[in-house]
Amino acid sequence: MTVLTLSELAKITSSKLQGNADLIITGISSLDAAIAGEISFATGRKYLSQLNKCNASAMILSADLAASYHGNNVLINKSPYLAYAQAIAVLHPKQAIQASTHPSSIIADSASIADSASIGANVVIGEQVHIADAVIIEAGSVINNNCSIGKNTHLHANVTLYANSQIGENTCLHSGVVIGADGFGYAPHQQEWYKIKQVGNVIIGNDVEVGANTTIDCAALGSTIIEDGVKLDNLIQIGHNVHIGEHSAIAACAAIAGSVTIGKRCQIGGASAIAGHLSIADDVIITGMSMVISSIKVAGIYSSGMPISENRQWRKNIIRFTQLDKMSQKIRQLEKLIKS
Amino acid sequence: MTVLTLSELAKITSSKLQGNADLIITGISSLDAAIAGEISFATGRKYLSQLNKCNASAMILSADLAASYHGNNVLINKSPYLAYAQAIAVLHPKQAIQASTHPSSIIADSASIADSASIGANVVIGEQVHIADAVIIEAGSVINNNCSIGKNTHLHANVTLYANSQIGENTCLHSGVVIGADGFGYAPHQQEWYKIKQVGNVIIGNDVEVGANTTIDCAALGSTIIEDGVKLDNLIQIGHNVHIGEHSAIAACAAIAGSVTIGKRCQIGGASAIAGHLSIADDVIITGMSMVISSIKVAGIYSSGMPISENRQWRKNIIRFTQLDKMSQKIRQLEKLIKS
Amino acid sequence: MTVLTLSELAKITSSKLQGNADLIITGISSLDAAIAGEISFATGRKYLSQLNKCNASAMILSADLAASYHGNNVLINKSPYLAYAQAIAVLHPKQAIQASTHPSSIIADSASIADSASIGANVVIGEQVHIADAVIIEAGSVINNNCSIGKNTHLHANVTLYANSQIGENTCLHSGVVIGADGFGYAPHQQEWYKIKQVGNVIIGNDVEVGANTTIDCAALGSTIIEDGVKLDNLIQIGHNVHIGEHSAIAACAAIAGSVTIGKRCQIGGASAIAGHLSIADDVIITGMSMVISSIKVAGIYSSGMPISENRQWRKNIIRFTQLDKMSQKIRQLEKLIKS
Repeated sequence: MTVLTLSELAKITSSKLQGNADLIITGISSLDAAIAGEISFATGRKYLSQLNKCNASAMILSADLAASYHGNNVLINKSPYLAYAQAIAVLHPKQAIQASTHPSSIIADSASIADSASIGANVVIGEQVHIADAVIIEAGSVINNNCSIGKNTHLHANVTLYANSQIGENTCLHSGVVIGADGFGYAPHQQEWYKIKQVGNVIIGNDVEVGANTTIDCAALGSTIIEDGVKLDNLIQIGHNVHIGEHSAIAACAAIAGSVTIGKRCQIGGASAIAGHLSIADDVIITGMSMVISSIKVAGIYSSGMPISENRQWRKNIIRFTQLDKMSQKIRQLEKLIKS
Repeated sequence: MTVLTLSELAKITSSKLQGNADLIITGISSLDAAIAGEISFATGRKYLSQLNKCNASAMILSADLAASYHGNNVLINKSPYLAYAQAIAVLHPKQAIQASTHPSSIIADSASIADSASIGANVVIGEQVHIADAVIIEAGSVINNNCSIGKNTHLHANVTLYANSQIGENTCLHSGVVIGADGFGYAPHQQEWYKIKQVGNVIIGNDVEVGANTTIDCAALGSTIIEDGVKLDNLIQIGHNVHIGEHSAIAACAAIAGSVTIGKRCQIGGASAIAGHLSIADDVIITGMSMVISSIKVAGIYSSGMPISENRQWRKNIIRFTQLDKMSQKIRQLEKLIKS
Repeated sequence: MTVLTLSELAKITSSKLQGNADLIITGISSLDAAIAGEISFATGRKYLSQLNKCNASAMILSADLAASYHGNNVLINKSPYLAYAQAIAVLHPKQAIQASTHPSSIIADSASIADSASIGANVVIGEQVHIADAVIIEAGSVINNNCSIGKNTHLHANVTLYANSQIGENTCLHSGVVIGADGFGYAPHQQEWYKIKQVGNVIIGNDVEVGANTTIDCAALGSTIIEDGVKLDNLIQIGHNVHIGEHSAIAACAAIAGSVTIGKRCQIGGASAIAGHLSIADDVIITGMSMVISSIKVAGIYSSGMPISENRQWRKNIIRFTQLDKMSQKIRQLEKLIKS
């Protein structure tokens, strides 16, 4: 934990300072947990009552909310959420990791590992792997042959990279991530499945984050591509030959089938599924648990799914759903009857 | 395998004994697999024909079902399923695990490990970790700095705990579980995502079970909390700052987004998804594959989702679904026409 | 990479050769990536324009498509996709793995490992495990007591087998797979959950593929069974006592609840969910994201789910959905009114 003055934080977060510029800020916490000395933040009027009960010594607020705040020390910012992100980054700086290679790690002779990298316990690194400066690879991770990992990238414990995976710079793979497993490709043959050998790889760009236990399959031919700045949550499936454009974000448990192309700056809600070979335009937002079975050509917000209702009501309505086509025909009949 | 008499099993399961009290029970099996010497059980009349063909030497049954059973030796119990659970617990007792620390394990000097704990091959344990009595940690698991694990807790192989995770007593984490990975938090900034450093942790209570490859993210600030007695199945996502009340159970592949609060004794069906920041009351049951996008304030059973139909029929009905609003308007027009 | 003549490839793929039989084929690539010397393929008329711009020296095509192809060298085949699968299998042959046991692996004395097996770094193998000929077990995998693995089977890095798992021949388990974790079984008891000890195991047949981070739970009693030729994609949950018939295939993120029986040659779409204790007939196809809550007795194609629409339209329609039962009643009233 770093300690800063309120004026230093104002500078870092590009905020307008109101109150005591020399106030020492000892930490950052949520409205319900903050203690004296700390700064907190609120992002909307629904937090107003909590805001004025909070024990924090300073707040990050919009001008609007600041007007209703009874405290004295405020950083006024158009985007308090971003300012909080900027503040916490300096108040909780990355711990310096010492360059080291744990004696239990097993590294092929032909691998090249930067002196500044940190290789954890029981890490296994294959032939011709290239590990750049300041890379951190935590315990139990396995890097197969011919992989490359760009500088400052962080692999948490128990990550697996299949052979030929290329990972960019400043990227983070969380525990349990599997990069480059075989895509799900079979040709039907005499009522059995003939495996299509998956000979491609995975290429992940810079500033990407991949959540715990997410899987990104290698391409059948060519590369599965995750562009710069993409953020993937936990337990997501990315099929073979998928291409995700830069700065798109996908929430947990989404299933992206093979050969899907997702544009730049898209947001895909959790537990959504996109069928194979579809194409999603730039700047598309898909809400959670949506089912995408045709391509989306125009930016916008798209949704599907049926929110819950009380179980008895749901039972009645789903029966009606299965009769929808008949209902529609019935309406047309009635219409004709009335007109005649 | 332990061997018991029928009367001992009657006592253990609080059942009424009918038949030979001294019968030796050598095991417990399902109706189709049980052999002479074993006990089996049935939980409803639909198993009646199987019941009377079963080779088991004794049965756990409700009084109702016992009346239709042709065999002589019965444990009569209001809840045969619970009695089966109690019986199998004694017939298949936990194997005693010898306290030991595998020589291949890598343990930081500052970690404190109870003498009665069992630390498996290639386990990695970080600084200031506290491992209580009779804890079992299986091969390949990685426990990062400052974690604590309560007595009798069992981590299966290849589990990962991020730093500062707190795990209670008598808790079980299955293989591939990841506790404490970063929550999915970013502030939008100039068409990119500004990472919000996740500085909280995960706190898991006593008597919790977490299924294989389930992920529980650390809090952004504060703690993600799983209370005592919670049961989580496999491949579940628990987002940052989620709070799950005691004795709630969640089936496989559910996605619980960030900052969701789930009450006590809830049951969430498999493949369900709950959107961020919602609150679910105590004693709520949500059936499988439900989509929850608003808070639930009253105990009860809630459902959504559309069960399958034959593909051709489904295609017709989903077209009608997209016309539902128009259909509704049309009905109102017809109504007016008729009334006029 | 192997190099072959076009006539050799024709033989291997049972294709009719058109053009230069002695043409040397140096590789296989997709239409957009192929270079001179390589062969490519197309599976439908929608690829026609790409086909005639492709730099490959030869093509695998149907007779129909071959007639529109401007190039000279073609392998004509009724099923170009299967022919591609057969061609790539010989052009990219499996790399010969040297039999070896990495010195860092930890193998119980009572385990029996074939001399021709390859045991990777940090692999942990328990008591009484049997590993057959030519098995490959990659780094970090953990094989618990009493497991058996049939010949030519391949476990990628960081796989976990719980005790008593039986894996057949020519089977492939991808990284992060967990076989044999406890099924999700509890009896309700005094508003808590009484754990039902899971004492069964998992039996996986020959020629099975299990995708990354997929979990297959052990049976409560007896065995969870995956028959020969079954293909499972990534992040799938297979509950306890599930039985999947031979040559069925399940796409990513599907959730198969406990005691489900799936017939032979079924195809289950990604992100689908099948509720517990149901039975699915042979040759059933279930499209992606379907919700199955009753058994399917007849072969055919089944679907559910609501494809996305523009968010505003969806909001209107889901309100109407919750009024469906009332709408239906209203239509009947109007009908009566008109008739009277």
